[in-house]
Amino acid sequence: MDADIITIGDELLIGQTVNTNASWIGKELALFGINIRRSTTISDERNEILSAVDESLRRSDLVIMTGGLGPTKDDITKETLCEYFDSELVLREDVLHRIEMYFKNKGREMLPSNIQQAELPKDCIVLDNDLGTASGMWFEKNGKVLVSIPGVPYEMKALMTKKILPRVKSFFSVSGMYHQTLMTQGIGESFLAEKIKHWEDRIYADRLSLAYLPSPGIVKLRLTSKKGIEDAEKIDAYFKELETQLPQFTYGKNGISIFETVGDLLRDKRKTVGTVESCTAGAISNAFVQIPNASDYFLGSLVTYSNDLKKALAGVRSLTLENHGAVSEEVVKEMAKGGREKLQVDYCIAISGIAGPDGGTDDKPVGTTWIALAFSDGVIAQKFQFGTHRGRNMEISALTAANLLRKKLLGLI
Amino acid sequence: MDADIITIGDELLIGQTVNTNASWIGKELALFGINIRRSTTISDERNEILSAVDESLRRSDLVIMTGGLGPTKDDITKETLCEYFDSELVLREDVLHRIEMYFKNKGREMLPSNIQQAELPKDCIVLDNDLGTASGMWFEKNGKVLVSIPGVPYEMKALMTKKILPRVKSFFSVSGMYHQTLMTQGIGESFLAEKIKHWEDRIYADRLSLAYLPSPGIVKLRLTSKKGIEDAEKIDAYFKELETQLPQFTYGKNGISIFETVGDLLRDKRKTVGTVESCTAGAISNAFVQIPNASDYFLGSLVTYSNDLKKALAGVRSLTLENHGAVSEEVVKEMAKGGREKLQVDYCIAISGIAGPDGGTDDKPVGTTWIALAFSDGVIAQKFQFGTHRGRNMEISALTAANLLRKKLLGLI
Repeated sequence: MDADIITIGDELLIGQTVNTNASWIGKELALFGINIRRSTTISDERNEILSAVDESLRRSDLVIMTGGLGPTKDDITKETLCEYFDSELVLREDVLHRIEMYFKNKGREMLPSNIQQAELPKDCIVLDNDLGTASGMWFEKNGKVLVSIPGVPYEMKALMTKKILPRVKSFFSVSGMYHQTLMTQGIGESFLAEKIKHWEDRIYADRLSLAYLPSPGIVKLRLTSKKGIEDAEKIDAYFKELETQLPQFTYGKNGISIFETVGDLLRDKRKTVGTVESCTAGAISNAFVQIPNASDYFLGSLVTYSNDLKKALAGVRSLTLENHGAVSEEVVKEMAKGGREKLQVDYCIAISGIAGPDGGTDDKPVGTTWIALAFSDGVIAQKFQFGTHRGRNMEISALTAANLLRKKLLGLI
Repeated sequence: MDADIITIGDELLIGQTVNTNASWIGKELALFGINIRRSTTISDERNEILSAVDESLRRSDLVIMTGGLGPTKDDITKETLCEYFDSELVLREDVLHRIEMYFKNKGREMLPSNIQQAELPKDCIVLDNDLGTASGMWFEKNGKVLVSIPGVPYEMKALMTKKILPRVKSFFSVSGMYHQTLMTQGIGESFLAEKIKHWEDRIYADRLSLAYLPSPGIVKLRLTSKKGIEDAEKIDAYFKELETQLPQFTYGKNGISIFETVGDLLRDKRKTVGTVESCTAGAISNAFVQIPNASDYFLGSLVTYSNDLKKALAGVRSLTLENHGAVSEEVVKEMAKGGREKLQVDYCIAISGIAGPDGGTDDKPVGTTWIALAFSDGVIAQKFQFGTHRGRNMEISALTAANLLRKKLLGLI
């Protein structure tokens, strides 16, 4: 079963509003196993609405349409749908009563334009909107369905959840698609694809579909079954395989932050963490506390951006700085060890690198980054070569550092 | 002149990723006075791509298309466009060289799938992607243009800004509207509108248009002239008026970061800064170093998330913590003064607050935040009440702290 989504509004086309309605509706429909064929955004114009509606109804079984139902003159969706479905507007007494009560409850005066909102096409099922004055409309034609609802997100969501999805479910007898994502850190999309290609072949043979969803420092693997929840165990088993095969990269499921994964491990083991940061200047520290209740294990950090502060706060020796430079294995190890004592933590992450856009040399180009981890009986350090984008280097550095600590906590390094 | 936007990707259709690319591109094109006819999202399937491309090219003069250009098997845009434009893939030696250098600079191995990324349609202009391995492609047909670029947002934005928009401008001879934005911090949209309403009336009378563009902690005011650059001085003069009238809120033009404004002031005055952070745990510190060459004035920070570290690192007294709690004027002032000495900086910002989602009390609800600033002859502190969203509170806190320092440096407080 296919669905189209149509979102109406100039503010969406010119990017003044990000189209979160389309993604929300897409997510909800996908969970029913409905295939989203196309999502279209158009302006509030008669011709645009007529052509988009016609194309979508030819293509898909179900069309969900938002926007253009307000009380102002520029909202013409209702009239245009009347034209398309060869219907006419009639005043619905029950809807008028609901709108009157809406204004009465708010203690506000009702305007003539609001009375017009009770005029609805004769040939549609009216879907009561408990949160606003614009009703939803459910049209049926040749076994296909078009639903038109307001674009105000909370009104749209309430109508979808309470009125439309249950009706879609029974009208089309749909069950639901099922998908899960596995999170990976520290491996690029093409390297990952190379490592899991045999697994991937089996996935396809098993009628599952796989998508690689990359973002800086992270690649998510999404497995989808069109059969729905009955494939849940199968998908779990496939992911389990990868988690066993690639534990150094996989850190959780379904959008979890690697800082949450690490935080849970620290909490379980009753261990604490802190950081000593140069190039990232607090990015790792801040990423830890983005997780609620991080105070269970995160104590604090030293941002030693200047060399003087590397010495004064983290106890790095002048000689080490002179001999090896601030971006070096030796310095970052001393930062980690010094920070571990100063912050009185079990694990201390230290980082020093050349974030860019300038400051690189032949020897240490922009993106060169050393990360160290100090623990009760030692310190390790690894060198990474990130890109040339300053902000992104910090982001990837933070994820990489978190993964280093995760691997240490799991005994993988 | 009309444009269509096509965004490719199942993750967009099923709402796993919100389609910020479409809104960003819409915004940029609209600023050139280009009318966005339609924005369409489709899946990575040959038939979908072929029909969407054909429909868009019939409808509009320019089609911008993102996504489906990765190195993995599920990315088929390039092949499909070859088919549509009746072209063939050829290996571009210059692109191959660029990709090789990309991997060499990262110190990573190149895979066969990456070599294939240097195979591009013979009949397109290749747009070099400096930030990734997938090139942009510019096709021309019957005086119309289709551009295909990667969907990774920062690669897309760089290609659009540096390569595509200038080319669109000359190809279609669009002049573009002229616009400038004035940045404000510390005042909400409706309060700002109230303060500037007489100014706003004059703007409209002068045939300029004004948009309020709010984001957490910031409201940008955008003035636009349809006449183009000839209105530049007029717009400058209008902004100058606001800067004189509201210096406590206005901090620069055209998207500048308040941390850049503050950084420039510090550099000019040869002063240094550091931070002592509790609730933000490095967010302010990190925001300073997002600006290149921040080491000219930014030295370092103490993240004192635990009370023990507030005492041990910043010298906050136990009694002050016991009597007033960590989120208090007294504690935050001691943090700022202690940090100023420890970090050996001219200005030290300190912050302590309840970021949420939990931890609020009747007395100090979630969002309660104290910010202090210590300088050579004193310390000041201000209390703010932010919202209930943890991540956003940190972001707004950082901007607010930067504005406090800006006002101090300018003698406004």
